[in-house]
Amino acid sequence: MDFKINCDVLLDALNVVQKGLPVKTPMPILTGIKLDVYENYLIMTSSNTDISIEVKVDGNDLTINEKGNCIIPGKYFLEIIRKINSRDVEISLMDQKIILIKAERSEFKLNTMDYNDYPEIEFINNKESFKIDANIIKTIIREVNFACATNEKRPILTGVNFKCEDGLLTCVATDSFRLSKKNIYLDNNINFNIVIPSKSLDELLKIIEDYNENLEISINNGKILINFKNISFQTRLLEGNYPDTSKIIPKEFPVIVKFNKDELIHVIERVSLLSPKEKDRNYNIIQLKITNNRTVQITSNNNEIGDALEEIIPIDNIIGPVFKIAFSSKYLSDSLKAFNSNNITINFTGELKPFIINDENNNNLLHLILPVKID
Amino acid sequence: MDFKINCDVLLDALNVVQKGLPVKTPMPILTGIKLDVYENYLIMTSSNTDISIEVKVDGNDLTINEKGNCIIPGKYFLEIIRKINSRDVEISLMDQKIILIKAERSEFKLNTMDYNDYPEIEFINNKESFKIDANIIKTIIREVNFACATNEKRPILTGVNFKCEDGLLTCVATDSFRLSKKNIYLDNNINFNIVIPSKSLDELLKIIEDYNENLEISINNGKILINFKNISFQTRLLEGNYPDTSKIIPKEFPVIVKFNKDELIHVIERVSLLSPKEKDRNYNIIQLKITNNRTVQITSNNNEIGDALEEIIPIDNIIGPVFKIAFSSKYLSDSLKAFNSNNITINFTGELKPFIINDENNNNLLHLILPVKID
Repeated sequence: MDFKINCDVLLDALNVVQKGLPVKTPMPILTGIKLDVYENYLIMTSSNTDISIEVKVDGNDLTINEKGNCIIPGKYFLEIIRKINSRDVEISLMDQKIILIKAERSEFKLNTMDYNDYPEIEFINNKESFKIDANIIKTIIREVNFACATNEKRPILTGVNFKCEDGLLTCVATDSFRLSKKNIYLDNNINFNIVIPSKSLDELLKIIEDYNENLEISINNGKILINFKNISFQTRLLEGNYPDTSKIIPKEFPVIVKFNKDELIHVIERVSLLSPKEKDRNYNIIQLKITNNRTVQITSNNNEIGDALEEIIPIDNIIGPVFKIAFSSKYLSDSLKAFNSNNITINFTGELKPFIINDENNNNLLHLILPVKID
Repeated sequence: MDFKINCDVLLDALNVVQKGLPVKTPMPILTGIKLDVYENYLIMTSSNTDISIEVKVDGNDLTINEKGNCIIPGKYFLEIIRKINSRDVEISLMDQKIILIKAERSEFKLNTMDYNDYPEIEFINNKESFKIDANIIKTIIREVNFACATNEKRPILTGVNFKCEDGLLTCVATDSFRLSKKNIYLDNNINFNIVIPSKSLDELLKIIEDYNENLEISINNGKILINFKNISFQTRLLEGNYPDTSKIIPKEFPVIVKFNKDELIHVIERVSLLSPKEKDRNYNIIQLKITNNRTVQITSNNNEIGDALEEIIPIDNIIGPVFKIAFSSKYLSDSLKAFNSNNITINFTGELKPFIINDENNNNLLHLILPVKID
């Protein structure tokens, strides 16, 4: 194995493939990147058992002198290529066990791992694929992914449900205390109902961040494969039935208040300064009150530290009577930050009933938050 | 107690006074800021028993309605004033135990602590003070403070020795594996020989960062007091005799090599990528070799991961014979980063003897590093 490659091209590929490396793993071999060098191209592969990533590199920035393959310690390989100060780098295998990385005045020797120990990574055969604009997927991840459960009590809730029927794609995430839902009409009529792990979506978002064209998608056998450019990103899907959440979303709202989003975010940040930080003592809980004189007060109470009170003037007349409700400030600020527009509406059903946040320009996105009972 | 103050003025004062708050303390009262409001000014005080800071605020940005005093929870007070979005803020004491902070649409109530519990902080009477340019003190801290010991095995080494005799100020820091020394001629002939805790110097540096005039300094009774603008910064001194380090600094150097500083820093960074990270296995150790063909090679060896080799061309002819030495890469890069100039010289005495780094333009600063023995 022996090839010469432009450092920037190699680094771009490594920055993608490293997102498939495990943080912790019972299989040390997976901390390596699999490198397969063919006659005219090379393929780098990583896998953390949830996510598997394959990047193909070819073209004029690559000169292959000898084919071959090996497993290179992923973290060190990436760090070396990041720090090397050279246009090109020459990479070769010595004695079938040491990778030699030569740059202008630098020379690194890395012990490789046993190629035969690396598990076989099966990527889906993508014959039955369909296309979705990368911007749609990025929007969905940014708008709903944060609401997934982070603990494993109900594993199915640690992912986002993507359900597509007759051209309507509905995406739902919930940790059972809050919920985010986005509807998008697609111009194809493929049908599916899958749950993609939240962490996989985070990594996917980083990889497609600067990509604005179509993704080629295949779903099969408990996995989803996303192909674009020279990259294949595959993740396992979560098994089980995603709960039907349509019934918990209220339809009638006796109290409706419209806010300037940024102003409301700042008010919540200030009020939360004094909200209790201990999980078991009304962690992060704030109160919202609609007063007699038609203003909105947001407050927090902390016996130990003290109290905070903020007044905020809605951007339109408040609809509905005097009212008060308590909820997690983190849930509200998370959901506010997921909106693009600066005018948002909070729709209340009752003092102990879930409420809904949406944005006048975009009825396809809604966030729901469950209140808490306080005295 | 009742006063109105411009938020920016209050925040500037709090940003200084908070540097005296303890991170951890067996005395909870010290997490508070002491606030004393007089007829025409107010004073804020903090102390972590090592450092005590006093800031005086007066002038047109302050309107005092009622005198008084209290102890306010420091962290919350600072966070509130940081986040408040208002030109002015009104601060008053309710029922002698609750601080009311009122801004435009915000209102915070903070429980105060018992004023009588706050220990008396004695600042030195500064009748016998002298002046030093703040820039001199900043330079000293930046150039030598990093070499202090961080563990408490020999407490005296956790500080910087400032010794002034006949107008020559000599500052030394060492952790017994490396040493930094700076000489400066002052235009006064005050004499002293003190050791200032390294952590206190770090905090002082942050506070005087943007101040370029004279500091007024008093030393007395195991403490040093530094006055400037409306700020008094006092720290305890370390007790004991600072070791005489003058004899360990070699005078003759058979091997002398000149480097471009930035290039050498990058070479060390790359070579260190593979140097062992475990404390007990030659942690961070790299080797420097002067080869037969008059180049310099820097290498690291790590049986588990692999080897790194970098070649670097000195900026002038190497003086001396073929030579090799091993040392901590961190020590060398720390000391290189402390130089302003980009041309530095490393002076070697022998393969197992301490070596010295200096900078041709500035013979008043030197760094010394002890090598390690490797096979």
